[in-house]
Amino acid sequence: MIKGITLPELDADKFINEKVKEIIAAVGNGIAINALSGGVDSSVVTMLGHRALGKKLRTVFIQNGLMRKGEPEMVAGVFRKLGISIEIIDAQKEFLAALRGVTDPEKKREAITQTFYKKVFGRIVRESKAKFLLQGTILTDVDETVAGIKRQHNVFAQLGIDPQEAFGYQIIEPLIQLRKDGVRAIGKALGLPEEVFDRIPFPGPALAARIIGEVTEERLNTVRKATAITEQMLGGKGAFQYMAILHDDRVTGMRDGKRDFGQQIEIRCWDSIDARTATPTKLPFELLETLAGKIVIEVPGVVSVTYNITSKPPSTIEAV
Amino acid sequence: MIKGITLPELDADKFINEKVKEIIAAVGNGIAINALSGGVDSSVVTMLGHRALGKKLRTVFIQNGLMRKGEPEMVAGVFRKLGISIEIIDAQKEFLAALRGVTDPEKKREAITQTFYKKVFGRIVRESKAKFLLQGTILTDVDETVAGIKRQHNVFAQLGIDPQEAFGYQIIEPLIQLRKDGVRAIGKALGLPEEVFDRIPFPGPALAARIIGEVTEERLNTVRKATAITEQMLGGKGAFQYMAILHDDRVTGMRDGKRDFGQQIEIRCWDSIDARTATPTKLPFELLETLAGKIVIEVPGVVSVTYNITSKPPSTIEAV
Repeated sequence: MIKGITLPELDADKFINEKVKEIIAAVGNGIAINALSGGVDSSVVTMLGHRALGKKLRTVFIQNGLMRKGEPEMVAGVFRKLGISIEIIDAQKEFLAALRGVTDPEKKREAITQTFYKKVFGRIVRESKAKFLLQGTILTDVDETVAGIKRQHNVFAQLGIDPQEAFGYQIIEPLIQLRKDGVRAIGKALGLPEEVFDRIPFPGPALAARIIGEVTEERLNTVRKATAITEQMLGGKGAFQYMAILHDDRVTGMRDGKRDFGQQIEIRCWDSIDARTATPTKLPFELLETLAGKIVIEVPGVVSVTYNITSKPPSTIEAV
Repeated sequence: MIKGITLPELDADKFINEKVKEIIAAVGNGIAINALSGGVDSSVVTMLGHRALGKKLRTVFIQNGLMRKGEPEMVAGVFRKLGISIEIIDAQKEFLAALRGVTDPEKKREAITQTFYKKVFGRIVRESKAKFLLQGTILTDVDETVAGIKRQHNVFAQLGIDPQEAFGYQIIEPLIQLRKDGVRAIGKALGLPEEVFDRIPFPGPALAARIIGEVTEERLNTVRKATAITEQMLGGKGAFQYMAILHDDRVTGMRDGKRDFGQQIEIRCWDSIDARTATPTKLPFELLETLAGKIVIEVPGVVSVTYNITSKPPSTIEAV
């Protein structure tokens, strides 16, 4: 049982100093490595790790082909400004190959996890000779893994897996006592720019989690375009999270007076404090209609757009 | 090319007298038969046919298992009060058998059409020795069939099919010059109660058109329950049409803190004059949330509800 630290209990500077000391003590004269996804958690771990280890921490950004538009360049740019150099590894082909023909959501997650850890990142770690892996696991990941709601990809010890034995390295999880709000506070204290620590959450499997059914390059392009439009139009409205989901079901549409059997995009936009419960944001109807109109015009193959009107529970924030 | 009669041009009493004469002239001393679906078109044809032929018209209502809750009994009850007796034929098993394993929307329509005409109604017609079939085809059906948007099940001549040759009977289509508004005016003049001639449109394949993917008894029960809730909550709000659609895609949900991989219902509610163009009704957000909440509580297996926010075109009113 991990002892959580709530936001009121959290002294950011004290927490940072302690974690820096712990990381230095654990890694010693060794080399550590971490994978930066661009999300809040891994960004904060990257900052914390570099403060502790400097050049002894190697940070890689794995381009898995499942990212939002311009994501790797944007993330690398933010860290470059902070004096931290990020290596971008292009592994798109390996991820697409692993996802080919996979439609079950759990198997998709599994394919991404396996490709990430065993194949791509595993190879990089082995070649780097690093024996320490820094990870941005937070308390909510542990809770959800234990509850069996969703399999998180970055929780090993809680599942009884020894990473030393299974993967050949030791995992350090400096954020494991915090929830999202605590991680954001630490990010702020570490000097991360607002665009990083205040970003809307994005799931581990990235756009693959926004596709129902098979993940292909074409379908990734479809959901990537819809995501860009959705984030542009729903950003800055105070919502906790917002997203576009590509459905596998086909629906009838019309183009130029002729039948067009097309695709459907589902929009979700959430009001929530901590993601444990959530309600759909009461967006103005005109905004929803404009958003739908823009998507059916700008995203090829999409003829229909819906807005999710269910609360969590029984819904969840993500669809798959 | 059929010459349409617009609502301003329509003289209901004159139209009824002419059509009654035409039906009498066509059928002579023969026997006619018609299938009543409970929709406006077939209800008006039933009234018109009985006015012309009395007991020489036999009206059957085929329970295909794809109907809304209590539909056959309700329809038979309405006509009983008008002095017209309807035979209810239970053919649920035949339709379910024909739909087993069929997921393609066109093939579903085809299976229903074939089962209806060739198997069930064909058998009834043959056994009845009727040589005349009254049908509620309207001008919009002809337009949409010609445009190839949707295959309507009751248009033969326009497709170059001779029903005499193909099915052994002659088809009489007294409403073919009218659109929905004209049919409603005729229904009113014939004394049909408001609950029939002012009902929201319901597609030929009934609830099968509200199911994406395979049509099974269980899935029919799911969409039937969601339809009843939707019609109860969205009725009387002035919308042109409103419906619940069961998706085939599964989405993640939560029940009692545990993962529940469940089903999704899509709600569509339309503002439209004539169904040729339509926009989603700007329903109050609170109503949408209450509707979604009621569906996830009362319909087993459903964890998520969306509301369609796309206009027609490029959307269509029905999903499949």
